[in-house]
Amino acid sequence: MASESGKLWGGRFVGAVDPIMEKFNASITYDRQLWEVDVQGSKAYSRGLEKAGLLTKAEMDQILHGLDKVAEEWAQGTFKLNPNDEDIHTANERRLKELIGETAGKLHTGRSRNDQVVTDLRLWMRQTCSTLSGLLWELIRTMVDRAEAECDVLFPGYTHLQRAQPIRWSHWILSHAVALTRDSERLLEVRKRIDVLPLGSGAIAGNPLGVDRELLRAELSFRAITLNSMDATSERDFVAEFLFWASLCMTHLSRMAEDLILYGTKEFSFVQLSDAYSTGSSLMPQKKNPDSLELIRSKAGRVFGRCAGLLMTLKGLPSTYNKDLQEDKEAVFEVSDTMSAVLQVATGVISTLQIHRENMGQALSPDMLATDLAYYLVRKGMPFRQAHEASGKAVFMAETKGVALNQLSLQELQTISPLFLSDVNHVWDYGHSVEQYGALGGTARSSVDWQIRQVRALLRAQQA
Amino acid sequence: MASESGKLWGGRFVGAVDPIMEKFNASITYDRQLWEVDVQGSKAYSRGLEKAGLLTKAEMDQILHGLDKVAEEWAQGTFKLNPNDEDIHTANERRLKELIGETAGKLHTGRSRNDQVVTDLRLWMRQTCSTLSGLLWELIRTMVDRAEAECDVLFPGYTHLQRAQPIRWSHWILSHAVALTRDSERLLEVRKRIDVLPLGSGAIAGNPLGVDRELLRAELSFRAITLNSMDATSERDFVAEFLFWASLCMTHLSRMAEDLILYGTKEFSFVQLSDAYSTGSSLMPQKKNPDSLELIRSKAGRVFGRCAGLLMTLKGLPSTYNKDLQEDKEAVFEVSDTMSAVLQVATGVISTLQIHRENMGQALSPDMLATDLAYYLVRKGMPFRQAHEASGKAVFMAETKGVALNQLSLQELQTISPLFLSDVNHVWDYGHSVEQYGALGGTARSSVDWQIRQVRALLRAQQA
Amino acid sequence: MASESGKLWGGRFVGAVDPIMEKFNASITYDRQLWEVDVQGSKAYSRGLEKAGLLTKAEMDQILHGLDKVAEEWAQGTFKLNPNDEDIHTANERRLKELIGETAGKLHTGRSRNDQVVTDLRLWMRQTCSTLSGLLWELIRTMVDRAEAECDVLFPGYTHLQRAQPIRWSHWILSHAVALTRDSERLLEVRKRIDVLPLGSGAIAGNPLGVDRELLRAELSFRAITLNSMDATSERDFVAEFLFWASLCMTHLSRMAEDLILYGTKEFSFVQLSDAYSTGSSLMPQKKNPDSLELIRSKAGRVFGRCAGLLMTLKGLPSTYNKDLQEDKEAVFEVSDTMSAVLQVATGVISTLQIHRENMGQALSPDMLATDLAYYLVRKGMPFRQAHEASGKAVFMAETKGVALNQLSLQELQTISPLFLSDVNHVWDYGHSVEQYGALGGTARSSVDWQIRQVRALLRAQQA
Amino acid sequence: MASESGKLWGGRFVGAVDPIMEKFNASITYDRQLWEVDVQGSKAYSRGLEKAGLLTKAEMDQILHGLDKVAEEWAQGTFKLNPNDEDIHTANERRLKELIGETAGKLHTGRSRNDQVVTDLRLWMRQTCSTLSGLLWELIRTMVDRAEAECDVLFPGYTHLQRAQPIRWSHWILSHAVALTRDSERLLEVRKRIDVLPLGSGAIAGNPLGVDRELLRAELSFRAITLNSMDATSERDFVAEFLFWASLCMTHLSRMAEDLILYGTKEFSFVQLSDAYSTGSSLMPQKKNPDSLELIRSKAGRVFGRCAGLLMTLKGLPSTYNKDLQEDKEAVFEVSDTMSAVLQVATGVISTLQIHRENMGQALSPDMLATDLAYYLVRKGMPFRQAHEASGKAVFMAETKGVALNQLSLQELQTISPLFLSDVNHVWDYGHSVEQYGALGGTARSSVDWQIRQVRALLRAQQA
Repeated sequence: MASESGKLWGGRFVGAVDPIMEKFNASITYDRQLWEVDVQGSKAYSRGLEKAGLLTKAEMDQILHGLDKVAEEWAQGTFKLNPNDEDIHTANERRLKELIGETAGKLHTGRSRNDQVVTDLRLWMRQTCSTLSGLLWELIRTMVDRAEAECDVLFPGYTHLQRAQPIRWSHWILSHAVALTRDSERLLEVRKRIDVLPLGSGAIAGNPLGVDRELLRAELSFRAITLNSMDATSERDFVAEFLFWASLCMTHLSRMAEDLILYGTKEFSFVQLSDAYSTGSSLMPQKKNPDSLELIRSKAGRVFGRCAGLLMTLKGLPSTYNKDLQEDKEAVFEVSDTMSAVLQVATGVISTLQIHRENMGQALSPDMLATDLAYYLVRKGMPFRQAHEASGKAVFMAETKGVALNQLSLQELQTISPLFLSDVNHVWDYGHSVEQYGALGGTARSSVDWQIRQVRALLRAQQA
Repeated sequence: MASESGKLWGGRFVGAVDPIMEKFNASITYDRQLWEVDVQGSKAYSRGLEKAGLLTKAEMDQILHGLDKVAEEWAQGTFKLNPNDEDIHTANERRLKELIGETAGKLHTGRSRNDQVVTDLRLWMRQTCSTLSGLLWELIRTMVDRAEAECDVLFPGYTHLQRAQPIRWSHWILSHAVALTRDSERLLEVRKRIDVLPLGSGAIAGNPLGVDRELLRAELSFRAITLNSMDATSERDFVAEFLFWASLCMTHLSRMAEDLILYGTKEFSFVQLSDAYSTGSSLMPQKKNPDSLELIRSKAGRVFGRCAGLLMTLKGLPSTYNKDLQEDKEAVFEVSDTMSAVLQVATGVISTLQIHRENMGQALSPDMLATDLAYYLVRKGMPFRQAHEASGKAVFMAETKGVALNQLSLQELQTISPLFLSDVNHVWDYGHSVEQYGALGGTARSSVDWQIRQVRALLRAQQA
Repeated sequence: MASESGKLWGGRFVGAVDPIMEKFNASITYDRQLWEVDVQGSKAYSRGLEKAGLLTKAEMDQILHGLDKVAEEWAQGTFKLNPNDEDIHTANERRLKELIGETAGKLHTGRSRNDQVVTDLRLWMRQTCSTLSGLLWELIRTMVDRAEAECDVLFPGYTHLQRAQPIRWSHWILSHAVALTRDSERLLEVRKRIDVLPLGSGAIAGNPLGVDRELLRAELSFRAITLNSMDATSERDFVAEFLFWASLCMTHLSRMAEDLILYGTKEFSFVQLSDAYSTGSSLMPQKKNPDSLELIRSKAGRVFGRCAGLLMTLKGLPSTYNKDLQEDKEAVFEVSDTMSAVLQVATGVISTLQIHRENMGQALSPDMLATDLAYYLVRKGMPFRQAHEASGKAVFMAETKGVALNQLSLQELQTISPLFLSDVNHVWDYGHSVEQYGALGGTARSSVDWQIRQVRALLRAQQA
Repeated sequence: MASESGKLWGGRFVGAVDPIMEKFNASITYDRQLWEVDVQGSKAYSRGLEKAGLLTKAEMDQILHGLDKVAEEWAQGTFKLNPNDEDIHTANERRLKELIGETAGKLHTGRSRNDQVVTDLRLWMRQTCSTLSGLLWELIRTMVDRAEAECDVLFPGYTHLQRAQPIRWSHWILSHAVALTRDSERLLEVRKRIDVLPLGSGAIAGNPLGVDRELLRAELSFRAITLNSMDATSERDFVAEFLFWASLCMTHLSRMAEDLILYGTKEFSFVQLSDAYSTGSSLMPQKKNPDSLELIRSKAGRVFGRCAGLLMTLKGLPSTYNKDLQEDKEAVFEVSDTMSAVLQVATGVISTLQIHRENMGQALSPDMLATDLAYYLVRKGMPFRQAHEASGKAVFMAETKGVALNQLSLQELQTISPLFLSDVNHVWDYGHSVEQYGALGGTARSSVDWQIRQVRALLRAQQA
């Protein structure tokens, strides 16, 4: 008899239960992580019940005290799960009853697991977002510090992985840091939408017993309360948004990882990963592999897979709570853990990475100044399209002759355009080249400094 | 010779071209949609060049006039594409040169297609977001109006598709409207991040010719400028965010569509779709199918597929521009069109839907008041858990006897609990039941009215 | 010093290690599941080494004996992991060395973790596919048995969730069983591609020590050996295929679950789920929710998410082994567990489901015979398009008059077409209607019997 | 009045239609591609009707002749669409009626658009699979030819993008060709499941008029007929499988593209893309970008997005036909076009790619022989683990001293192990190194030749 097993729904069920179904249905193996917020939510709710006259002051105190005891057991690792504890809510209430007796049965008055679980999850995620924000800021700060310290290092900027124009190494660092500031901004927006209280929505129709949701909101320090009880118990936008936030952030980190893996190859030799973030080969003694970066790159797939999975689960679901929604928590827990590890490892990688300045400098080549050569002609009055074509001819001439672009003689250049004069020599200076890019956002020193100030200001504003 | 074909990169290429590759590479079949914003961006840029001294006033005027001519040809459908026009940028500049001669070759000075295309796309999407916001507000407004008008209609609220508790029909409408207000809020956030100007970033290193990016920003009415030229030309966060925004919004609409498809079955018979949004069967004369709703439901898949596709394309991409990014535009165009159609069709469906009040009322059954029966006992002082179990026993007794829950005699109820008295009869009133749920967000009249006011206030605030 | 910690790559590393990185990098928490196949693979490999003269017979025996000991410890739960055991391969080899001394160091000769891990995974998945095939067959068999037993039950067939035509309940069951036979066929194809041996591919270039891969293949009973060592160590097609197989199978089961959830609503009342596969509500005493079916439906999302995640991880990965590939195993393990549970729960649901024959019969209505009415006219010689339109007019007339379609008088029908005669009455017989569909694949008794025979024959063929 | 507009469902509808809904619902803009297979299917069906006695011989001939006329108009581009032609099936039947009169109305007897459209799609996809198979074989053949021709070229094999061991260039080519043979095998399996006839399934219940489905199958040369009419009209496994086939194939090509993009960087300089598959920069005259390869890489995302979209659309769909399934065709058409272009461009890239043998050779370095150094000790009797550690110490020693690994003196090596003797010099020969890998699948000449023979044999077998 199911009723003997003490299941929540009590007296009605008469059939036996399939053990595989029991396991399939249970969430306690992972939702036990919610123990603390579950207690927190229940404490607030019992205060709400007391205010509404559904608990006496003494009963409330008994419940609060019992819940503190439950929390203590979890904190000390002495909480014992029963086989019938299918989820954390059942487990905590069962234990409360053992501790304080029948009064425990008053705690769930007017509450449903539907509004309870989503309140717990929001409490948990609110904290997680704060933690992840902190880790993200730490990463950005590390990058900006590094960009500031190494502002004088030049190396090739690539487009399509072909050498394009000389840039500052700091400009590259900042290109990734700036992307991460958008992730940071988005995470605050997601957190804002997490920070809304659904408690008091019941199973579907709302709370019928005069519980004051504003009091609950204040108790749990939420920004606002949900507007509609049916929506409140079954929408998982905040979960989907969080998973997508993580996916996009991972996409950024996957691109940074890809760059660093390339720059760390023997062929590029621009950077060297610290041993702490590399591993060796079980077969090849000379190998030192950038496993940290490869794992970061790979997690973009895993994290997005969770986002895709949740969206598919939500698609076409009838409104209000369906058990399908139970898929939300494992996704959130896994993605939170992944993001926490990734952000810390990325910070470690960036802060311990060695750069090879000489190799970076030697990788700059005169053909990367072909655009500058065109600008030389532009400054002499030639329309850019013609200048671009003239410079292209110079590149072709140099390639055909097998010399570097800056090895073409003035006479040779003048066969292409009479505008070339002896001052064309000034073009062949990488330091001068980067300093041209003084418009905001460019790679000139002043602009890189401006970027650093902008990112620091953003961080300060977000932390406020 | 490629140079003879007038390709942008001029004098260097000597090989022939594979026609399949040409077609594979070209984007003109779809990016021609950008003609207007491309002209708009070029006009602003020529003003920037003039201010920087790279164009004389006369040259600028010539270019501005020529660009207006180009736009006029597009608007009137007389613009003729050449086989070599691989994209809209090439096409417009080629035409400009035909119209005004060599001065056209000055327009691209210091600009790259990398910053040009992303500027164009942002301009286009900024407008699209405004349009879609308007359509979304129209849908929400329609729903709220309907909720207000039909506030007295009761019908079963379902969880797990099982009858749960009586609710107001308006409460159901609002549950979906409230979800859409979050989409509306998110769309404004996405638009905010779209509204940032990348022009003046060049190909990678920035703009070297003293172009004033603040002037460009003001000319094109952007909210801010991008911070880093490498990031600016290659990040597509705003595209990914837009696609995800659409995916989540479609998930909401897919759930509403699912509900309405169910409610429109013969078995539920709560609603009837207007003929304008139904279609018949080529085989079965009696059929009237909710094709509009099914298409809305299905588009959630298509739209999310575009989001998934873009994220996968971005994963692990080396930084800065790679041709892979060309995938962004078709995704944006298709999803924009889909969202526009879906929002309008959904508005049409909601505004013409008939409801069958009698069927709705008749679907309410006494067992849906089992929770109320438990609350009856709670109000008499019984702890909720015991009350829940007692009510469960009543349900079981009624089922066993084959009678409705409200047909159990007082004596029968008293075998379950002596707290049952004759006033238990007051429980069996659906109107009374819904009015219990007076906590904010619940289904009582006052709370539904509060919801309507809240949503209207939100809309007003967002439109401001 | 890393060398002191006994790491595989021995003497080279000098840096310290970040504990978060260690944990991020380690796979032992989940790949310990591979303990048995890892031992199995190592035993085969030591036989290969002996044949190649790299081990003496005595050394081989020592290793084989030691590996049996390792396996015994795992089987008995006495295997103790060290903090440095980052993966199952390291753990097993470390333990082997403790058990048999330096000879253990010969086992990895010419082998790499790259070919070792993928061999292990293939061994594990080969077994899993067999297990899942068995569970899938059991489900199909259950469905076919039920279809055979309940062949006389009629109920409405729906398209677009609108009542379409009367069909046999067995026809519905078989529609889902037939879909599952394709999953079964595909699983055998996936298994065929899993059943290919990569061992002997080394890290990338192959095996340099004369190990006979045919001998290894025979030892481990693989169907074939991989063709190219670079591909062998880094392709994960078989994982992607398995994840997609599961995704498509889950899509089928999600559709079956959706149908059953609908048929189990109060409104349809065609079926009733066994209590063993239902759960109750923590708030509403009368509720009995189809949680089993909802979980099945939801898992389609989760499983597909894993498939999406892996594909994204693989996209654009440089060839050969990269650490990104470590993502494969958790996906496989989770999806295997999910599929195993889902198939067993689905079998339980189907075998214990009650059907309400009377409700099914009463849900048939004359308008579902509108197509039959058209066929009546077709048989009298009217082209189908006209007959379809005539029948449509009859439906409209009946609706307008507020009567059932079969309540129209002969005179009324004759106003639509003079071809209607008194024998039109024979149309209004549901049993007769279904028996019309005698073409193969239709819902007539003979055709349903044929389907049952076909599916049984397929199962027999696949199990052979 | 809808009935006046000649819609298929004739007399029932009385409401007006929303033009946005009309466009949203219509599929003619893309399904017109099916014109030829639609005619083909209708011709077969009219033969089936004649055999069943539902058409006279004369009527059948009239219909066949009319359908040929319809096809001719499409082929010659003279077919005129009407505004009411919502899909290709409606359009063709409407035109047939115009051409031959009322007899046209008999063609749809017992047929539904549900079985018609899926028959059309299968016919179209069957042909497409054959075309794509041919293109895939052409690509594989090109790769194998090239592998055979350049078998003597050595270059670095990479794992984790770190130089690992010397390999043959042909070994690299074959690693990708071998992956594509699996795609080829899978495509044949998908085609096998496409090649099953659903015609004769009607809308849901089957065909009631004695149409012989075996005759239809033979007429249209299908391999088999579908087993269950409900499944036949609503399953889209073959579409999902095709989209996943394409996704996995694109994943392979994305990895090959990534390799070639890297090998084509200035830093690697192993290969040079033909001008025909490169493009230039609108800004930087010296740039030559591998756009073809980047587009191939990016299409992996797009194609998988379509697969994800369809799976999400299918998830949880009630059984039988729902309009949601209309999403299948655009996905198939787009992916087919993409695959066709990608396979041809990839073939062009491979067949015109230049390799720089000298650069490849110069990139080999002594440290890539560290494994060989360990094997040297293994051959002298040292257990591999010790040998691996000893070789690691040699690498470290060389790094510390700043010399190449092969520059360590014998005395220095002997401080690591006394087993090092003067014959250690034989280790430093790249040609000798690769020839060690003679086990099947390795990079030795004999094994590469074996691979070539194996792949050629596979291609022959598949084409049979």
